[in-house]
Amino acid sequence: MDNIKIGYIGGGSKGWAWRFMSDLALEDSFSGEVRLYDINYESAKINEIIGNRISEQKDAKGKWRYRAVKEIGEALEGADFVIISILPGTLDEMEIDVHLPEKYGIYQAVGDTPGPGGIIRSLRTIPIYIEFAEAIKKYSPSSWVINYTNPMALCVRTLYAIFPKIKAIGCCHEVFKIPKLLSLMLKEKEGIEVNPSEIKQNVLGINHFTWVDKISWNGRDLLPIYGEFAEKYYYEGYEEEKDRWKKDFFASANRVKFDLYKRYRIIAAAGDRHLAEFLPWYLESPEKVYEWKFSLTPVSFRKEQAKSLSEMSEKLAKGEMDFPIKPSGEVGVQIMKALLGLSDFITNVNYPNLGQMEDIPKDAVVETNVYITKDKILPIYSGKLPYDVNSWVLRHIMNQEMILSAVLDKDRELAFRAFYNDPLVESKVSWNTARKMFMEMIEGTKRFVPKYLGGEK
Amino acid sequence: MDNIKIGYIGGGSKGWAWRFMSDLALEDSFSGEVRLYDINYESAKINEIIGNRISEQKDAKGKWRYRAVKEIGEALEGADFVIISILPGTLDEMEIDVHLPEKYGIYQAVGDTPGPGGIIRSLRTIPIYIEFAEAIKKYSPSSWVINYTNPMALCVRTLYAIFPKIKAIGCCHEVFKIPKLLSLMLKEKEGIEVNPSEIKQNVLGINHFTWVDKISWNGRDLLPIYGEFAEKYYYEGYEEEKDRWKKDFFASANRVKFDLYKRYRIIAAAGDRHLAEFLPWYLESPEKVYEWKFSLTPVSFRKEQAKSLSEMSEKLAKGEMDFPIKPSGEVGVQIMKALLGLSDFITNVNYPNLGQMEDIPKDAVVETNVYITKDKILPIYSGKLPYDVNSWVLRHIMNQEMILSAVLDKDRELAFRAFYNDPLVESKVSWNTARKMFMEMIEGTKRFVPKYLGGEK
Amino acid sequence: MDNIKIGYIGGGSKGWAWRFMSDLALEDSFSGEVRLYDINYESAKINEIIGNRISEQKDAKGKWRYRAVKEIGEALEGADFVIISILPGTLDEMEIDVHLPEKYGIYQAVGDTPGPGGIIRSLRTIPIYIEFAEAIKKYSPSSWVINYTNPMALCVRTLYAIFPKIKAIGCCHEVFKIPKLLSLMLKEKEGIEVNPSEIKQNVLGINHFTWVDKISWNGRDLLPIYGEFAEKYYYEGYEEEKDRWKKDFFASANRVKFDLYKRYRIIAAAGDRHLAEFLPWYLESPEKVYEWKFSLTPVSFRKEQAKSLSEMSEKLAKGEMDFPIKPSGEVGVQIMKALLGLSDFITNVNYPNLGQMEDIPKDAVVETNVYITKDKILPIYSGKLPYDVNSWVLRHIMNQEMILSAVLDKDRELAFRAFYNDPLVESKVSWNTARKMFMEMIEGTKRFVPKYLGGEK
Amino acid sequence: MDNIKIGYIGGGSKGWAWRFMSDLALEDSFSGEVRLYDINYESAKINEIIGNRISEQKDAKGKWRYRAVKEIGEALEGADFVIISILPGTLDEMEIDVHLPEKYGIYQAVGDTPGPGGIIRSLRTIPIYIEFAEAIKKYSPSSWVINYTNPMALCVRTLYAIFPKIKAIGCCHEVFKIPKLLSLMLKEKEGIEVNPSEIKQNVLGINHFTWVDKISWNGRDLLPIYGEFAEKYYYEGYEEEKDRWKKDFFASANRVKFDLYKRYRIIAAAGDRHLAEFLPWYLESPEKVYEWKFSLTPVSFRKEQAKSLSEMSEKLAKGEMDFPIKPSGEVGVQIMKALLGLSDFITNVNYPNLGQMEDIPKDAVVETNVYITKDKILPIYSGKLPYDVNSWVLRHIMNQEMILSAVLDKDRELAFRAFYNDPLVESKVSWNTARKMFMEMIEGTKRFVPKYLGGEK
Repeated sequence: MDNIKIGYIGGGSKGWAWRFMSDLALEDSFSGEVRLYDINYESAKINEIIGNRISEQKDAKGKWRYRAVKEIGEALEGADFVIISILPGTLDEMEIDVHLPEKYGIYQAVGDTPGPGGIIRSLRTIPIYIEFAEAIKKYSPSSWVINYTNPMALCVRTLYAIFPKIKAIGCCHEVFKIPKLLSLMLKEKEGIEVNPSEIKQNVLGINHFTWVDKISWNGRDLLPIYGEFAEKYYYEGYEEEKDRWKKDFFASANRVKFDLYKRYRIIAAAGDRHLAEFLPWYLESPEKVYEWKFSLTPVSFRKEQAKSLSEMSEKLAKGEMDFPIKPSGEVGVQIMKALLGLSDFITNVNYPNLGQMEDIPKDAVVETNVYITKDKILPIYSGKLPYDVNSWVLRHIMNQEMILSAVLDKDRELAFRAFYNDPLVESKVSWNTARKMFMEMIEGTKRFVPKYLGGEK
Repeated sequence: MDNIKIGYIGGGSKGWAWRFMSDLALEDSFSGEVRLYDINYESAKINEIIGNRISEQKDAKGKWRYRAVKEIGEALEGADFVIISILPGTLDEMEIDVHLPEKYGIYQAVGDTPGPGGIIRSLRTIPIYIEFAEAIKKYSPSSWVINYTNPMALCVRTLYAIFPKIKAIGCCHEVFKIPKLLSLMLKEKEGIEVNPSEIKQNVLGINHFTWVDKISWNGRDLLPIYGEFAEKYYYEGYEEEKDRWKKDFFASANRVKFDLYKRYRIIAAAGDRHLAEFLPWYLESPEKVYEWKFSLTPVSFRKEQAKSLSEMSEKLAKGEMDFPIKPSGEVGVQIMKALLGLSDFITNVNYPNLGQMEDIPKDAVVETNVYITKDKILPIYSGKLPYDVNSWVLRHIMNQEMILSAVLDKDRELAFRAFYNDPLVESKVSWNTARKMFMEMIEGTKRFVPKYLGGEK
Repeated sequence: MDNIKIGYIGGGSKGWAWRFMSDLALEDSFSGEVRLYDINYESAKINEIIGNRISEQKDAKGKWRYRAVKEIGEALEGADFVIISILPGTLDEMEIDVHLPEKYGIYQAVGDTPGPGGIIRSLRTIPIYIEFAEAIKKYSPSSWVINYTNPMALCVRTLYAIFPKIKAIGCCHEVFKIPKLLSLMLKEKEGIEVNPSEIKQNVLGINHFTWVDKISWNGRDLLPIYGEFAEKYYYEGYEEEKDRWKKDFFASANRVKFDLYKRYRIIAAAGDRHLAEFLPWYLESPEKVYEWKFSLTPVSFRKEQAKSLSEMSEKLAKGEMDFPIKPSGEVGVQIMKALLGLSDFITNVNYPNLGQMEDIPKDAVVETNVYITKDKILPIYSGKLPYDVNSWVLRHIMNQEMILSAVLDKDRELAFRAFYNDPLVESKVSWNTARKMFMEMIEGTKRFVPKYLGGEK
Repeated sequence: MDNIKIGYIGGGSKGWAWRFMSDLALEDSFSGEVRLYDINYESAKINEIIGNRISEQKDAKGKWRYRAVKEIGEALEGADFVIISILPGTLDEMEIDVHLPEKYGIYQAVGDTPGPGGIIRSLRTIPIYIEFAEAIKKYSPSSWVINYTNPMALCVRTLYAIFPKIKAIGCCHEVFKIPKLLSLMLKEKEGIEVNPSEIKQNVLGINHFTWVDKISWNGRDLLPIYGEFAEKYYYEGYEEEKDRWKKDFFASANRVKFDLYKRYRIIAAAGDRHLAEFLPWYLESPEKVYEWKFSLTPVSFRKEQAKSLSEMSEKLAKGEMDFPIKPSGEVGVQIMKALLGLSDFITNVNYPNLGQMEDIPKDAVVETNVYITKDKILPIYSGKLPYDVNSWVLRHIMNQEMILSAVLDKDRELAFRAFYNDPLVESKVSWNTARKMFMEMIEGTKRFVPKYLGGEK
């Protein structure tokens, strides 16, 4: 199969796109063309150069042609796969999302899924995804669409709401952290070296608030060993490299996960910084966050990161350096391979609930294992969450539905109601204060918020 | 129909039983025998005398024979109807339920449904209802069972969990307050006198956290007038008799209802004191409660009430006074009449969800309108709640399921998890503090808590 | 309420329209304007005259203005209610529907719902209803739509498939025959005179293949008396006027109903001629039909009927006769009154399944009781059918879905598969013979069949 | 894992048991003990000898100890797995099942699933499975239960109805015929040798009336090639060995499958002899069956087979011959391995519907792919059948529910109604004739039919 066509929306992205190019280069069973579409055409053009350079590297087994395109239709027409990975708005808007609420005492570690930041981000992302869904319906209705943008669940939910026959999933690597963690534990306690991919887990929940209720390796139940570590390292925390969380904004000592295990006897399967945003009690104050041993990623850091990626981009384009071809840890390329029928694959993805999760409304986008085979994503039944965990999951699902309705029905009051119903908001401020904060956040991000929700777009 | 048999569990109750006797006396289309069963046989015996006296009064149109019985089987055998109205434990336990949490800063207005008190009450009530369900299965599997005990939803849920073919409903008069309130508004604003029973409403939710999303009279939508009053009297409150809430523990100025309307654009249909217990923001402190213009009913008041009822009971039994025959405001007798096929009736009852509420799990006990006809309770489709309201309803339903499972599986840790997942608890205290409070409450009510949950029973 | 607007699609209809006008004239609680729209404008114009004459009659309590309109939009714009009652195609097409299959040994008593005739009729009706749904969406999205056209379930199903937010029901008087029949039985057996409207029944099933599993009067279960009559008159049959079925094509001796009761212990609630078409064993031959004591209505008879109605139409328009104002037996006007909030009403209607029938797919159009109140149709839970009855109902529902898909997806092969899956067809002829018959029927009705299904339209 | 315990109910079975022993011997990753329980203890005793001999063979990689036990509890206590493979009644009863209906013109090819024979067989099998379920609940509630007995779906359904927490599946090899057939086609047409296990298919339906709507190999959709063969060999038929169907009762020329493909554009996935029994048109007469190129297996043949197995049994026990150790084609051992967590496995099994099939009632036992991992069977979403196919599947599911209810409620009339609702019966004889046949079949098998259904047991 050497004529596969991929349309890449957000194809000018730095870092993420290159890792994807690298994954493609590592796979030799299929190849073809990648059309890079981006609202910033220049950056797509640069990635065209970078991508083609990667293809030319000797260790590139899969040879792909990269081509920047000016219209979304050019990217989509005839595509076998559509990749979406965009930044909704700019980091300036993200700064509002994450940091403005701090003056009201609301702290967020990421700010891209729930929380006041996640909701404001959603209000500018959903209108964009409505357009994507319409474009896909028009240009490539039978393509498989793989989304990487956050808020993950709402992006995927929007695609299905607008074009119900779309074939779309959302991919996220957070859950893979659990097998990795278990392999560390096995090594420490018993000296066994286990490849995380051999550890089998049952995944259920929603993106970034995902859970694992069964996990085993080679016939052995691994929950007991996790429980042991959770207890032993409850206060101290546990990580591959001690105190890495102090210098790496994306790391943690897993204390939040251990606390959740102590409460619910089930493994929370995402980074602590994500998990903490779904519940009202881990983000009380920066001091508390420090005690829980994770960080609040400042957007200033992301801006610096963006700057160095920009510099790297130049160098890559000029050929002053090579992008190293090595696995990114994402499974997008394996998923494409399975959808082409070349090798069945089971992994966790974000997909509308067809019954794979019980006690969760149909159509809500849930994250569970699926069986991927030729041209099919088939959800695997995953059971149900403990009632208390489920009550929080349901609250976030209700909020997602409310946010989506707010955009579809152009109902600003509903958007605010979702905002207030977020646990981080509701647990900290009054209805009236929340409204003030909401207005300020809309104002601060107005360039990307539709007029009907109070913005300028 | 003059040979109807009613088994009354809790038949020694004071006050409530007499009003039921009075309602029976007012209905002339059916009559028969009432068997009074109570764990306190003496009080049943006294009610036998009082009941028969009421039957003898001249204005008693329905003539019933009352008979105290010593065994539950005697009450149930061959019964057409079973009435259950009990106090689980004594007022001393209720004192623990309601007041012990105060030292942790948790205030409750009633303490019999959600909240720490509601949950501890549930832990001693469910085991009793398991026995009732087994007795009904054994002695009178085809009787209609009408429950009045709180926690309403969990009592009814338990009956169905143990004996799925039971024909049981739960009745509560809280919802009737809304038509009454609207009739006051119509009178004040337009001088129209409307009988509340002519006001039609669509009811949905769970007991004591019930909602009305459509209400009309004679073809006229009444939501706008409710909205007007909610706005106009938002700060001042609105009640039939001004400031009655200051002297009557069961009254309120409806400020909580108006605030809920402002937020959700739907009418909350229960007393403010009940509604406030389902959400974390109305019961912050006694001062806040005062501002919201309702009261925290002290159990000491209930004890005084019990004392005067006891004195009245003596007088009634000795014939020193007559119990006045007048409508109680409850619709139990109308429901029985409809079930006998004598007159169809539509009213709101608590019943397992067969689909009458959307976005709510099947089998959860919900409160909606039902159509009652000969030997049938047929739920009427009621639609769904706004997402934010529903997220709170779902949390309480998840908690109810967890409490029931805790008792059925004899799992004390699960009981505590439900306790912690209650909004009044979770929003105020930490996991560890909650556990301390939980243990104290179990200890304080241990005479009535099963051993497997940490009590002595 | 004297400004109600009704849009009447098929407003030139003879007979049926006049009875509707008469019902309107009998109701004094609301009035307004009726806009008559018909593809035959002339006949609408004549009905305008007839309608206004009826309004002028002295015994007309409700005074309505009738007005023929040329465009469907004129009828719909601002309408409170939309009435649809049309003949899809002409009686010439119906002749093909009903009589062409006879040469293949397939006999039909009506030919407008299931059976080869019903299916061919559906193929020309659904495209028309797609247009109606689009017009309603455009001109009067919040009107209540009451459909009277057959195939009832598919007409209503199409409206919802095209415009999911439509507020539409289907009305049919067949079910009312059961209370009437029971009142006859009560009178014969016990000399009691009962108004059929006092008899309460639980209705469930699909239109023309509807069932009653509970029926009572004044607290008395009437199933036993029905059972007695079904047994006693099993061979002879039972009807108000003996042997009326021999001269009235619409009458029967209820033998099919009694046979169904003998088999399934549940009352089949439609005329025998309709019921017989859903099962393969009552219509074996004209002789067998005679034994079962009902008739195969010849379309020639309908043509004669049409002729005399045409003559009557002229007389009415010219004022040579008055149309008698008396109740038609239809409940459309009562339904409108209830929807206006003037008087709640419970009756059976055709409505998408929201859970009111168990073991039936969601969204299938089922016929059960509903509670009608201001601006709301609320289905009443009706339980489920016996498994064997349900297996036949499900087959017809699957067929309906298949027919609808065939039209929506423009898939002629699927249309044929539905045709073959009809019990009357499948039980009598082979796949290949059925295809021949199908082609002939399409050919014979081609003027009204869309091109994509093999017709000319 | 060398201490696995298997309880084998029907452990005295000939042939089937030996092949299972052989499969166990071929697997080296786990071993342990097999307890053989049979109502005929002698035959279990003989299998104990045979099993242990197989274990002693040099090529036996898995070494198992076989032990005949006298009580079912001994077999079940502490078992990791329970295998059930029994003959309900004797071949004399099966003779009645299969051949008695022939005098009424009803022919059956197998007679163990639907059809008059399947239903009568069910009436004697379900009571046995009720006992099995109770024994498993008592002795080994957490064992995995693998059933091989027919009627497959009803056996599994009964186990769950009696003990809802049971962990049971049903295994059947019929579906594996499709990949085999496709590999033949690929070889014939393109000369490609494909291992059938590499062909991936999506399975859905009920046992013996199962369907495949997606099938691919190495990224290639195989439906087109199947379609080509179905057309090309429509009349002639297609099989590995030409005209094998003439001498092998279990073979066919796949004409029924090709005819079903022609009608429904989906692959029917079971032997033609099974498929034919679910529809009324393939078994019209022995002549027609001959035209369709499959056979009606006479029970006399089964009796002869039983005789030669009996002789072989003696020889095996005496050590006069060795049972050859080679794969049986069943996947039971692979399933056990996966449940032990030793190697994940995807295959089709019979399991209650948790949502893996749409438009099919929850809890009905359906056959779809499942993902098997440590201590978990997780259904894989399989979508839905075409409407016409589904209408037949639903009819058989309704019948299964009716048969189960008939036994559970001890309702003979309901059993007869299920019997009459079977397509083979309903399409051939009248209600009254069917009743006569039903009574004769009950009479003829009465030793094994419970008294409450008219038998003697």
